[in-house]
Amino acid sequence: MSLLQNVYNLESEVRSYVRSFPTVFEKAKGYKIFDTNGKEFIDFFAGAGALNYGHNNPLFKKKLMEYIMNDNITHSLDMATVAKDKFMVRFNDVILKPRDMEYRIMFTGPTGTNAVEGALKLVRKVTGRENIISFTNAFHGMSLGSLALNGNFAKRRGGVPLHYTVHMPYDNYFGEALDTLSYLEKYLEDSGSGIEIPAAVILETIQGEGGLNSASIEWLQGIEKLCRKYEILLIVDEIQVGCGRTGSFFSFESAGIRPDIVCLSKSISGYGLPMALNLIKPEIDIWSPGEHNGTFRGNNLAFITATEALSYWVNEDFSREIQDKAKIIHGVLKAITTEFTEVPMTVRGRGMIQGLAFDISGFALRVSAAAFERGLLIETSGSKGEVIKLIPPLIIDEEGLQAGLSILRESIKICIDNLRCEV
Amino acid sequence: MSLLQNVYNLESEVRSYVRSFPTVFEKAKGYKIFDTNGKEFIDFFAGAGALNYGHNNPLFKKKLMEYIMNDNITHSLDMATVAKDKFMVRFNDVILKPRDMEYRIMFTGPTGTNAVEGALKLVRKVTGRENIISFTNAFHGMSLGSLALNGNFAKRRGGVPLHYTVHMPYDNYFGEALDTLSYLEKYLEDSGSGIEIPAAVILETIQGEGGLNSASIEWLQGIEKLCRKYEILLIVDEIQVGCGRTGSFFSFESAGIRPDIVCLSKSISGYGLPMALNLIKPEIDIWSPGEHNGTFRGNNLAFITATEALSYWVNEDFSREIQDKAKIIHGVLKAITTEFTEVPMTVRGRGMIQGLAFDISGFALRVSAAAFERGLLIETSGSKGEVIKLIPPLIIDEEGLQAGLSILRESIKICIDNLRCEV
Amino acid sequence: MSLLQNVYNLESEVRSYVRSFPTVFEKAKGYKIFDTNGKEFIDFFAGAGALNYGHNNPLFKKKLMEYIMNDNITHSLDMATVAKDKFMVRFNDVILKPRDMEYRIMFTGPTGTNAVEGALKLVRKVTGRENIISFTNAFHGMSLGSLALNGNFAKRRGGVPLHYTVHMPYDNYFGEALDTLSYLEKYLEDSGSGIEIPAAVILETIQGEGGLNSASIEWLQGIEKLCRKYEILLIVDEIQVGCGRTGSFFSFESAGIRPDIVCLSKSISGYGLPMALNLIKPEIDIWSPGEHNGTFRGNNLAFITATEALSYWVNEDFSREIQDKAKIIHGVLKAITTEFTEVPMTVRGRGMIQGLAFDISGFALRVSAAAFERGLLIETSGSKGEVIKLIPPLIIDEEGLQAGLSILRESIKICIDNLRCEV
Amino acid sequence: MSLLQNVYNLESEVRSYVRSFPTVFEKAKGYKIFDTNGKEFIDFFAGAGALNYGHNNPLFKKKLMEYIMNDNITHSLDMATVAKDKFMVRFNDVILKPRDMEYRIMFTGPTGTNAVEGALKLVRKVTGRENIISFTNAFHGMSLGSLALNGNFAKRRGGVPLHYTVHMPYDNYFGEALDTLSYLEKYLEDSGSGIEIPAAVILETIQGEGGLNSASIEWLQGIEKLCRKYEILLIVDEIQVGCGRTGSFFSFESAGIRPDIVCLSKSISGYGLPMALNLIKPEIDIWSPGEHNGTFRGNNLAFITATEALSYWVNEDFSREIQDKAKIIHGVLKAITTEFTEVPMTVRGRGMIQGLAFDISGFALRVSAAAFERGLLIETSGSKGEVIKLIPPLIIDEEGLQAGLSILRESIKICIDNLRCEV
Repeated sequence: MSLLQNVYNLESEVRSYVRSFPTVFEKAKGYKIFDTNGKEFIDFFAGAGALNYGHNNPLFKKKLMEYIMNDNITHSLDMATVAKDKFMVRFNDVILKPRDMEYRIMFTGPTGTNAVEGALKLVRKVTGRENIISFTNAFHGMSLGSLALNGNFAKRRGGVPLHYTVHMPYDNYFGEALDTLSYLEKYLEDSGSGIEIPAAVILETIQGEGGLNSASIEWLQGIEKLCRKYEILLIVDEIQVGCGRTGSFFSFESAGIRPDIVCLSKSISGYGLPMALNLIKPEIDIWSPGEHNGTFRGNNLAFITATEALSYWVNEDFSREIQDKAKIIHGVLKAITTEFTEVPMTVRGRGMIQGLAFDISGFALRVSAAAFERGLLIETSGSKGEVIKLIPPLIIDEEGLQAGLSILRESIKICIDNLRCEV
Repeated sequence: MSLLQNVYNLESEVRSYVRSFPTVFEKAKGYKIFDTNGKEFIDFFAGAGALNYGHNNPLFKKKLMEYIMNDNITHSLDMATVAKDKFMVRFNDVILKPRDMEYRIMFTGPTGTNAVEGALKLVRKVTGRENIISFTNAFHGMSLGSLALNGNFAKRRGGVPLHYTVHMPYDNYFGEALDTLSYLEKYLEDSGSGIEIPAAVILETIQGEGGLNSASIEWLQGIEKLCRKYEILLIVDEIQVGCGRTGSFFSFESAGIRPDIVCLSKSISGYGLPMALNLIKPEIDIWSPGEHNGTFRGNNLAFITATEALSYWVNEDFSREIQDKAKIIHGVLKAITTEFTEVPMTVRGRGMIQGLAFDISGFALRVSAAAFERGLLIETSGSKGEVIKLIPPLIIDEEGLQAGLSILRESIKICIDNLRCEV
Repeated sequence: MSLLQNVYNLESEVRSYVRSFPTVFEKAKGYKIFDTNGKEFIDFFAGAGALNYGHNNPLFKKKLMEYIMNDNITHSLDMATVAKDKFMVRFNDVILKPRDMEYRIMFTGPTGTNAVEGALKLVRKVTGRENIISFTNAFHGMSLGSLALNGNFAKRRGGVPLHYTVHMPYDNYFGEALDTLSYLEKYLEDSGSGIEIPAAVILETIQGEGGLNSASIEWLQGIEKLCRKYEILLIVDEIQVGCGRTGSFFSFESAGIRPDIVCLSKSISGYGLPMALNLIKPEIDIWSPGEHNGTFRGNNLAFITATEALSYWVNEDFSREIQDKAKIIHGVLKAITTEFTEVPMTVRGRGMIQGLAFDISGFALRVSAAAFERGLLIETSGSKGEVIKLIPPLIIDEEGLQAGLSILRESIKICIDNLRCEV
Repeated sequence: MSLLQNVYNLESEVRSYVRSFPTVFEKAKGYKIFDTNGKEFIDFFAGAGALNYGHNNPLFKKKLMEYIMNDNITHSLDMATVAKDKFMVRFNDVILKPRDMEYRIMFTGPTGTNAVEGALKLVRKVTGRENIISFTNAFHGMSLGSLALNGNFAKRRGGVPLHYTVHMPYDNYFGEALDTLSYLEKYLEDSGSGIEIPAAVILETIQGEGGLNSASIEWLQGIEKLCRKYEILLIVDEIQVGCGRTGSFFSFESAGIRPDIVCLSKSISGYGLPMALNLIKPEIDIWSPGEHNGTFRGNNLAFITATEALSYWVNEDFSREIQDKAKIIHGVLKAITTEFTEVPMTVRGRGMIQGLAFDISGFALRVSAAAFERGLLIETSGSKGEVIKLIPPLIIDEEGLQAGLSILRESIKICIDNLRCEV
């Protein structure tokens, strides 16, 4: 029986990406990943954003192996360990202090949804309110608390009704026809609107799963202003777009806002290891001990690689690199939109999370499949899967980037040619 | 600033075990753990049950290092990898087939509560019903779906009302005065009881957090029978007591029952790495692709050590060892209850999860603190923290076991002596 | 087209009693009701308990006509009127003061379920808690708040999940095998039980819809004691069994308890007119003005007849009469159980709400139908409709009572004879 | 003790209108109401819309007295009676048939909120969906199901969270800046909006409690169109503005829409007696017998007066009269807005439910109090009580109308003069 066959016999139907990328992977390095047949793929998928620093980054790997070799603590629940201590100090020194951010670090269960669940509990405790304002096309996780925040119906199925969430229009949701900030304020200030002042507003600066809609700087600032005015807490979910994806460590830096809670996961460990944390303003850190706990909050292997990963942020070089590559991506995507006019498409996103939204149902899926055949891993996004989404490792070199973009262009071309044949 | 001071300045108030065990740990091996001062502790806490095979088990460690060294896939979401494939095949061969169990494996986000959330979604989808029967003093996790199942109020705080759960009396909850099985059936068969037929019953065979209450074989069989009769699905949460804790791989094997879903986490990776999975009967594996997903379902480092850990289960030797050590524990605990009659106490639990329930409020906490001073890590359990709970690594040798039990006895003695002085 | 045909063409499928009693009624007097064919029925149904003083009681009718004739206020929302004033003063003088009861009167929308909704809002406001303890086989109304309290599944269908209710076992629910008071207390005192201290306990002293289960005096006293001990409010729903149905004005008088809220409706107007009210202990009367309002709180026609109806309660005569008639009913029912041994049956209820529970599915329905044919209106009760329930007007004379009981006996006999034939 | 003193001693704090109108009323006739001191008031409040035909309409009164005198059925639960039969036939003949409307009549508990609760249950049953789209500033009742639909926070307090409702912007909610129909459709058609297709949309054509906001004909038609397109049921709550308030029997007639359910109460009995009903399209009348029941569905006294009230609708005369009076009201109100420019105010509403919205907080309340002193009953509306609302009996003659309007003008003048003095 082939390895892939085992998957189909033994793994639950819930398996997902193995269907889009039907092969068995064995090794990986940087922006490349290899299957058991030795076939090489350029990885523009990057563990759905968990591999900003690439696969098996050699710097991190060395530290990781040393740590394991020396029988340091692997598992620690939330007891204190040297590895955790070093991570916290380094994170504070490299990330928080230079940005003049004073936050407490909360280690939640090591997945994004655990972090969001923790954030929800805390804002409800702090405010004594229950409702959360989330946005159209938001995605925040798959456990019951997070589920209610999601916009996409396919990501809202929990078998029970979902409550305590109001889905307000995201920036630009109704185009020019609606100033979504004023609209939100109208609901907040009108005592007859049916919408009570919520515990918190939760948002992504770019909706990674929701189709790469990006919020403008003005909108982010406006939301923060409303939050302050109406004494609402502000949670920014940086799980997918934090850790440098947009060029700065936090995606909201350019807006100059100060969320009350920041959720981090995915690339925070740097090596794709399970890890998640919340940054919490000290004045709202009113948790009782163990009020939100879990067995794997102390994944020390992740702390080791996470600490190393912070080296990328000691100066501005990495940021500039990302912005340069972002421009390359944008240029190529723009060029594609003008090259192929038969299929209407628009460029979405910013930084190194960009994509193309196609106006033909199912088209992005075809592009992804064609790219896979040609050695490029790339996934789709949006509530109808209408966007092809590029999230290459941030450390990819220009050659790799151009190679991947080239396969993407070619895959789009092929798909358009096929469309013509069908007609 | 001392390392511990960093924790107090940088980590959220939610931190918990660092308060019970106020030191910074650095290294660990087998059943021993060492802090930065070189102080050695016998570990009867074992990562709250995540370290059944001890810290940094050398067999697993070797495989882990090789895997990392060779740049094999670390992160894979739920794409197919060689490591995942091997784990699934091995798990099927060593655990499922010999027990004549046909189940599909679902990798959830790598924490226990993610697995429980997945189980809840599935039973609701399969049955079209929403309610779950849970039991008094149950504990199933801290995200919003799992939270509603918990009995302990301190573990039910989510800032919003919790629904869809009926807390029925666990085996022996009301002592001899109530046959809890007949009572449950009365509610199920009476169309005026107010309790609709639920989607599922979820239970722990021993309530690890709830005070080490153990269900009898007859009770487990009775519950399964009721589930079959009323077409209710049966979920067994093996997160804390599975993976050999009671002597057999699954804690329910002696009862001969066949749950519809089995939740595994904690010790499944063998190395304390984040990992969780659900075993699902094929006939209810009706998930849509990606319906319950998450970024860290493919923690390949965990698959590597988890595969190795299965070697302990290729024959009956390990089981027998555990049972022998369980007897030693039981003997010593019994002896303690007869030695110290001033403080009424009872032995609870079975296998290598046993403890002493004290009738004096706060006493178990004092014992834990006294033990810590003397070089033993041991935690409390129960809704009032009334139980001192022993969950040493299963691989502990007799010497270590006796040494730990000895410290425990001495700590109890000291605490009783102190009580006398206070009076 | 016949009149009955109109009903079937024009009225919604939700119509109910017209199906059990398929004729068109025209006139009524005391315990008799007549259809358009002039057929006379003895009414043991009494508007489901709304006609304790019989149909069109001549004393009340005279006052009602005078009031209408003089163009007194018919509708008043909750403005003050002479009619409302007089009712409140008289109710206070005749009912409350002599029983040493100090309560405020709250007029809710004029149906039982409106009163229960008001009670629920208030106990939640007073305690800041959300959950209510209700009992197996309870019935408290059909709007969304009340619906959640019901035990019977057929009376719990609202199209949305129902929450905030825990269904504890009613007195004797599990027979001798369970002391339901101690059991309830176990859940209240155990911080791991999963059941938080609720805002209130709501109960009926006899479950009118739930099968005529009666609570003992000791049980009612025990519940009150638990409520005081755990600072839980006590609501007694007297909608069906208050206003003299059990012999005393309130059904709970013999238990000497003092509920925090008493819900009254059905017979409170005395004439079958829509009216409902809550009696509220002054110390919890913390409503904001209009916080629970509605257009028909000031049904002045009902106030007029309600005031007159209180004349029955100025001395003990009426109580004694009811008790005498209750004995007659009990005697006849007992005799029936010994006469017809083929169908196992038991007498249920007390006062002038008694019935027979039959052990054969559908039998009570047959008896009701046979009685209708023979000129007796009588309905069924219980979650499976297993009880034939007698609630004749309290003012029925002995002749009428015996005549009705006679038809009942005969109907049972016929149904048993028919059973024999079927076999 | 004065009568009013009794109210303050015996009635719950929840009492409301007795605070705005602090006197004891005794008699009433047509558009006049008299207190115990013989003081006469013109009634522009009309039982909050329950007295469209005036107090104690002599035609209805005669029929009512005959019916009572003859010992016809007063209370009937939902058994068939001659009175109910005649009402249904007459309603069908006078109201439904001429408008080509085929509907089934459902008698709910006799209050508006009971009708709305029934409508909610049915749309959820028919569609299998749970959510309802309601609108900003909506008001639909005070029991738990209806409560969730309300916009005004003061009318949403039930002591538990309210769910299953999405508050969309009502017509013109965001002024010219938003086309609320397109906006609603965007949410319905976008599978990522977070708002599932609901069971129903519920609306008032004029928001009687919410500040007299009126929906345009185009908006009502647009909503109906969206409902048909997305297979959503449409409920129109005509409790306050039906029964002729706007000129036609149903307020939605001019829009030509066909709601799936129409809720009627308040003025349907014509005499201020408790009564409520739902009109249900036959194809969705899938109720089980008794699925939404209650004791007072058969208020036969109300059926008698309700049947008589239909005489007003046998031709167009009454409609025309109402429209003429509406013009008078509009003219006077417009004149007031131009006469007193110190206080910015706007005319709201249409037909015989119109009012003035003042831009000064608390001003409308002052006007109401000043009017009461001068012999005019008139209430306020809007989430901040910012609107003075005129709902005189439809049968008021021109003299009465002018007299009332005159007092209103004078009261506004006085209040403005007082404002000047305060400054």
